[in-house]
Amino acid sequence: MVHPKQPPGQGDRSPTGEDAAIQRIGMLLKSRFGGPPPGETWSGDDAAVVSLPGVAGDHPSLLLTTDAVVAGVHIDLALVSLSDVGWKALTVAISDIAAMGGTPAHALVALGAPPGTDLDEIAEGIGEAAEQWCCPVVGGDLTAASQVMVSVAVTGSLEGPAPAVLRTGARPSDALFVTGWLGASAAGLRILRGGPASAPAIGESERAALELSHRRPRARLAEGRAAREAGATAMMDISDGLGIDLDRLARASGVGFVLDEVPVAPGATPEEARSGGEDYELLIAAPDDGSLPDRFEALGLRPPHRIGVCTADGGERRLGDATFEATGYEHRF
Amino acid sequence: MVHPKQPPGQGDRSPTGEDAAIQRIGMLLKSRFGGPPPGETWSGDDAAVVSLPGVAGDHPSLLLTTDAVVAGVHIDLALVSLSDVGWKALTVAISDIAAMGGTPAHALVALGAPPGTDLDEIAEGIGEAAEQWCCPVVGGDLTAASQVMVSVAVTGSLEGPAPAVLRTGARPSDALFVTGWLGASAAGLRILRGGPASAPAIGESERAALELSHRRPRARLAEGRAAREAGATAMMDISDGLGIDLDRLARASGVGFVLDEVPVAPGATPEEARSGGEDYELLIAAPDDGSLPDRFEALGLRPPHRIGVCTADGGERRLGDATFEATGYEHRF
Repeated sequence: MVHPKQPPGQGDRSPTGEDAAIQRIGMLLKSRFGGPPPGETWSGDDAAVVSLPGVAGDHPSLLLTTDAVVAGVHIDLALVSLSDVGWKALTVAISDIAAMGGTPAHALVALGAPPGTDLDEIAEGIGEAAEQWCCPVVGGDLTAASQVMVSVAVTGSLEGPAPAVLRTGARPSDALFVTGWLGASAAGLRILRGGPASAPAIGESERAALELSHRRPRARLAEGRAAREAGATAMMDISDGLGIDLDRLARASGVGFVLDEVPVAPGATPEEARSGGEDYELLIAAPDDGSLPDRFEALGLRPPHRIGVCTADGGERRLGDATFEATGYEHRF
Repeated sequence: MVHPKQPPGQGDRSPTGEDAAIQRIGMLLKSRFGGPPPGETWSGDDAAVVSLPGVAGDHPSLLLTTDAVVAGVHIDLALVSLSDVGWKALTVAISDIAAMGGTPAHALVALGAPPGTDLDEIAEGIGEAAEQWCCPVVGGDLTAASQVMVSVAVTGSLEGPAPAVLRTGARPSDALFVTGWLGASAAGLRILRGGPASAPAIGESERAALELSHRRPRARLAEGRAAREAGATAMMDISDGLGIDLDRLARASGVGFVLDEVPVAPGATPEEARSGGEDYELLIAAPDDGSLPDRFEALGLRPPHRIGVCTADGGERRLGDATFEATGYEHRF
């Protein structure tokens, strides 16, 4: 069944309160400077792409991003450890750098916590992630707060000549890829919560892997760089669920899409794969000529999943013959 | 009266819980990378001084800093507006860049707030400060939280050939300067709170000026750059009070000091000038040859106050003949 088509930017998902507020505030703040200089990207993508004063180059090459993780909002301290909070806060910011095709360079951490919080355990998780992603923490701030909150800012650079991959460049007939199975983080969270009876039956090692996906997400740095080198036209990380995030990419690029499949992580449900969020796999649009999978193979990376194609009708949102809803993960903790 | 002298690093102030935790966490995180590469400064100064990968230069010239302002901790929403919170959050981070002699380039803002908070008002204050300090907000994150918290990360650059001014370079016989009268912010807070009877009698315009000092601190960017150009040996901003902050600078540089005076803002008490904090004036050590005041004069800046000299005895802490206590402002809201 083919659903009624809608003009670009008028899909069946209303902007969430969060999206709307971010857009409004971003506009408020940009307007004071008349928007970014040519070639720069400010808020609205995974990371900002800017020039550093006094540093010349073919294109702006300093990446900047910030993310805050708040206990009780993004993460439940009854289910995960403080070191997991630290890991996650740094990793989700690093993932934004991955989503531009960049390489992280430095992290800054602002940490708020109630008295008596084990700060060293949070720092342990931050440090493990910093080491994992080769991104030293070069500064920080520490403050009292009523809940644990970790704000991380990360700088990144672009190796090689290709510019950053934005969300806005996807073209009709580009293929759409994701870098891994989806839904693992949501399934891990379900299991950590005690799991409903509807959970697919899985073994102990699969169970542990799903929990780990929730507690310790990965940033797809090598994949992001490979995609940029291979000529990806648009990219973002899947933080809020494929449903919402693919809708965002399509809107930003002014394209529609038709999906063939959504790769479901072993032990996850199709719904978790579609709307669970927090997988931090990359969603990539690239010319449908095999260059992206070839590049991944040449680098020894896991093959990306080709999930569908972009279409010229900016309102088209399909999975096979059905409408693909822009559902996802919206601050539901 | 001359007080017993103490070896460097063993002054009469124990590190506060905050200082100790920051130091411990900083060490934990640095140790994973074996500390900064030669020429770089990571945590421990007002801002980090790093190199950007692929960018050559005589010395590292990218400045990075982060600060968090939390309502109920740093700021009382019964006394100041949400736009003041936004202004302050950005300005205190900019002040860190000023304290290195740098020029701000970009800001990132992570904003947490309870449902129903007027986010636009916070953004208004952030935007006013961004415009004031010529530092566009290029990215951000927005999240639900149980209290208003604004984390700001700022990048900065160093114009001209001189390296960043750290806290560690003060030498015996260097003169000590501050860029303005002290105690205005603390006096403004006292007045906003309804003011004790002991307050000096002041007029309405002085009163308004003091309140403004608390609500809308200034970042001393021109003064910081002038100090760096004039050969300042050490510099920091006075965020926690001259008592604590001068102790920090002296410890970092391994010097003592003898002060002649502490310049007290009109309407403030000597105690507020010494320990009130949040003035964000710069504390500067520089050769005692007049080059710093001359440079300020040439640029049309207010003359800096020469408050005393550094001494070779790292334990010396004097104001005239009395001990100068390392008292200050420690999360007392």
